[in-house]
Amino acid sequence: MLELYHAGLTACSKKSRIVLKEKGLDYVSHYVSLSDFEHHDPDYLKLNPNGLVPTLVHDGAVIIESTVINEYLDEVFPEVSLRPADPVARAKVRVWAKLADEALGPNMIVTFSNAGGIGKSARSLEGDDLEALIERIPLMERRAVITKITKGGGFSEAEFAAAREKAGFIVDKAEAALTDGPYLAGDSYSLADINMVPFMHRYRQRVVPDKVTPEKAPRVCEWLDRILDRPAVIDTFAISDETRPED
Amino acid sequence: MLELYHAGLTACSKKSRIVLKEKGLDYVSHYVSLSDFEHHDPDYLKLNPNGLVPTLVHDGAVIIESTVINEYLDEVFPEVSLRPADPVARAKVRVWAKLADEALGPNMIVTFSNAGGIGKSARSLEGDDLEALIERIPLMERRAVITKITKGGGFSEAEFAAAREKAGFIVDKAEAALTDGPYLAGDSYSLADINMVPFMHRYRQRVVPDKVTPEKAPRVCEWLDRILDRPAVIDTFAISDETRPED
Repeated sequence: MLELYHAGLTACSKKSRIVLKEKGLDYVSHYVSLSDFEHHDPDYLKLNPNGLVPTLVHDGAVIIESTVINEYLDEVFPEVSLRPADPVARAKVRVWAKLADEALGPNMIVTFSNAGGIGKSARSLEGDDLEALIERIPLMERRAVITKITKGGGFSEAEFAAAREKAGFIVDKAEAALTDGPYLAGDSYSLADINMVPFMHRYRQRVVPDKVTPEKAPRVCEWLDRILDRPAVIDTFAISDETRPED
Repeated sequence: MLELYHAGLTACSKKSRIVLKEKGLDYVSHYVSLSDFEHHDPDYLKLNPNGLVPTLVHDGAVIIESTVINEYLDEVFPEVSLRPADPVARAKVRVWAKLADEALGPNMIVTFSNAGGIGKSARSLEGDDLEALIERIPLMERRAVITKITKGGGFSEAEFAAAREKAGFIVDKAEAALTDGPYLAGDSYSLADINMVPFMHRYRQRVVPDKVTPEKAPRVCEWLDRILDRPAVIDTFAISDETRPED
């Protein structure tokens, strides 16, 4: 039995939901509302002490970190393979997985600063409620983000600029990689594409829309549209009983 | 044929040197001097466009990122296995590998701020030489560190405090993990231990020596001494013809 604790349309949750759907695996979906700070609930922290989503539970075994969950799923359910057999190509997939982990930063700075979702919920708190919220956040990096957008005056223009520079760097890396083949890690669709697509989608939509254009990044735009058109990705990105429209 | 481009006694270079030695693999060692900024040389950037060490070249195929190099080596040379066969345990190894990647930050802030190595070299430059150095650094995060320790007045007390908090968090995670077994990912020595040992060694030596004590982290201290006593780790940490004493 597979269970996924996730926050629907957030980037890291999408990463693992895509893999489950590409492989046609049945799973129990547990929605964890970030706006209601359910990822900081004591019961959830027993599963995932870092207070992050997603978390996979497979026959009682708990796997955390979307990148690690995705490689786990590909090892345990290899029928629909999402990693190349060649170790050199597989290393390329892992370099992309690492870059997808780094891609979260710019996405979060811009998304959490927006009007909706967890940013809005956090900003609606004050006084002791806000202090209690911040106190409960296990990871110092996340605590710093929530502190910044509530009582820290928000991110500075220099921090937004650094986030956009990082996003632009990743777009440029993808554009260069796609000269070598139709997918980020070469010839075949893989975890490299899956781990990156939620971030690249947000980069085009919200973070660096001026960089992800057919003029400046034609290969990335074509790749993004092609990946977004896969049935598993369409299902993952759609409003459904697995999601809420909050993000 | 295996070739490793590395900077000897720096943490990420140690990670991959340990794996090569544990497996008894012959390799050609290419020392890349960070103090001389050889990792920013155009020829090296052809191999590793990020300008980081180490880089592995295996029969002409280039693999970057120490974490990725180490999993590659374990896939291609599985005789001495450094990952458990069970996928759940293997996922734990990968969570540790990810944490080792995060462990670099605190290590770098404290180490680069010290008197020796790349920090000293960078601080000895000024004017156009310094601008040219900064201009050549491919990754914005590394550019930011060098800018900060040269013309940015160094890291602030708040930044040092954040680095120490992060290091302390990792020490606490390790102490907790070692209640489950003698190694970080459970029963067997693995890439989890190898990827973490260079950082934990520096944490005890330099970053959070007050946290890595037999009183506060007894399991971590015992683990650290035990791992540092392995022949492959002794060889890796020693001054040898593969290293220079600069770091």
